[in-house]
Amino acid sequence: MNSLPKSIQNAIDALSDLPGIGSRSAERLIFALLKNEMPLEEKIAKALLNLKKNLGECERCHHYCETIEGESNVQCGVCHDFSRDKKVICIVEEPTDLIAIEKTHEYKGLYHVLHGVLSPMNKVGPEQLRIRSLTERLDNTDEKPDEIILALSGNIEADATALYLTNELKKFSTIKVTRLARGIPTGGDLDYLDIGTLSRAMLDRREF
Amino acid sequence: MNSLPKSIQNAIDALSDLPGIGSRSAERLIFALLKNEMPLEEKIAKALLNLKKNLGECERCHHYCETIEGESNVQCGVCHDFSRDKKVICIVEEPTDLIAIEKTHEYKGLYHVLHGVLSPMNKVGPEQLRIRSLTERLDNTDEKPDEIILALSGNIEADATALYLTNELKKFSTIKVTRLARGIPTGGDLDYLDIGTLSRAMLDRREF
Repeated sequence: MNSLPKSIQNAIDALSDLPGIGSRSAERLIFALLKNEMPLEEKIAKALLNLKKNLGECERCHHYCETIEGESNVQCGVCHDFSRDKKVICIVEEPTDLIAIEKTHEYKGLYHVLHGVLSPMNKVGPEQLRIRSLTERLDNTDEKPDEIILALSGNIEADATALYLTNELKKFSTIKVTRLARGIPTGGDLDYLDIGTLSRAMLDRREF
Repeated sequence: MNSLPKSIQNAIDALSDLPGIGSRSAERLIFALLKNEMPLEEKIAKALLNLKKNLGECERCHHYCETIEGESNVQCGVCHDFSRDKKVICIVEEPTDLIAIEKTHEYKGLYHVLHGVLSPMNKVGPEQLRIRSLTERLDNTDEKPDEIILALSGNIEADATALYLTNELKKFSTIKVTRLARGIPTGGDLDYLDIGTLSRAMLDRREF
């Protein structure tokens, strides 16, 4: 027999559906909410119910953005920002990557979010990614950048996607295609590094 | 400028109010919800909104229990279960401790949840805990158990609470008061153990 009231058990079950939250963590979170005298659970519930309301994709870069009722063409905060450098487009896999790059404050250009990488195993081909909209964007002379940065991850699928994109972008001969530097992470210890990273760091060494 | 739509930022902020969930974890959870095509966020939101609805305290043991409309006296699942041994009462600090003990399947008696421990620093005295209702419960001859188990934590405040309760329970001379065994945890390594636990394990040693 379960010693928990149904409402508590339901909440624990729902929370433990989240990735990385097991039933024990969910239990601890729910009991923290029960102990809390503030209606924090209501605040969270309302925020979650509103999460996907008025949420769409930027018509230009496919980042998440707020939709406006009655308007079909919407742009995200980055594309809306007139101070951004329109001559550089950074291609990322997911909106989370865009946010990570934004946090560095090192990049002032625009983005293009693919929403995934090529993955034949998971039936993700070029059609499933926002690649066609990228070439359409580059066909538009007003939008044509000088440089495209491939800011993809370091795994095999991302490498394959980068290769595919480089081929696709060959027809835009005026655009320089670059990729993120690979090397030793900041604070990284040489003798803990894998051979791939270390040899790449050696090959890509730069003058002091 | 924030590169995130307001609804996403609100959801991240709300989730990171939970204990143990920082802004990075909250971000990861919210983006997992956004990626998920199932309306998991609605399921969670509904469960959270229902969490404290129809939730009360068991009139006997003060565990969480479902309230029934129009009825003021309600009992939790454990107290309701006729197969439980009414001759033993296990005193715990929080409902979470009750659940932990239930999971061992070693205990078949009843409970009494104090909802805290004595803590003068946090202005928690005997009046703030469910101690009076415990003595009232023991005064009732129908409810009088043969044994009371103090299943409190191993810290100083819990020890003080145990001492206070032992004094309070002295007037019920027919009731045996016991406490949980202290010693080496299962799978514990002797040389990693603190001195307090090890000396307690030595003192409380038992015949093979």
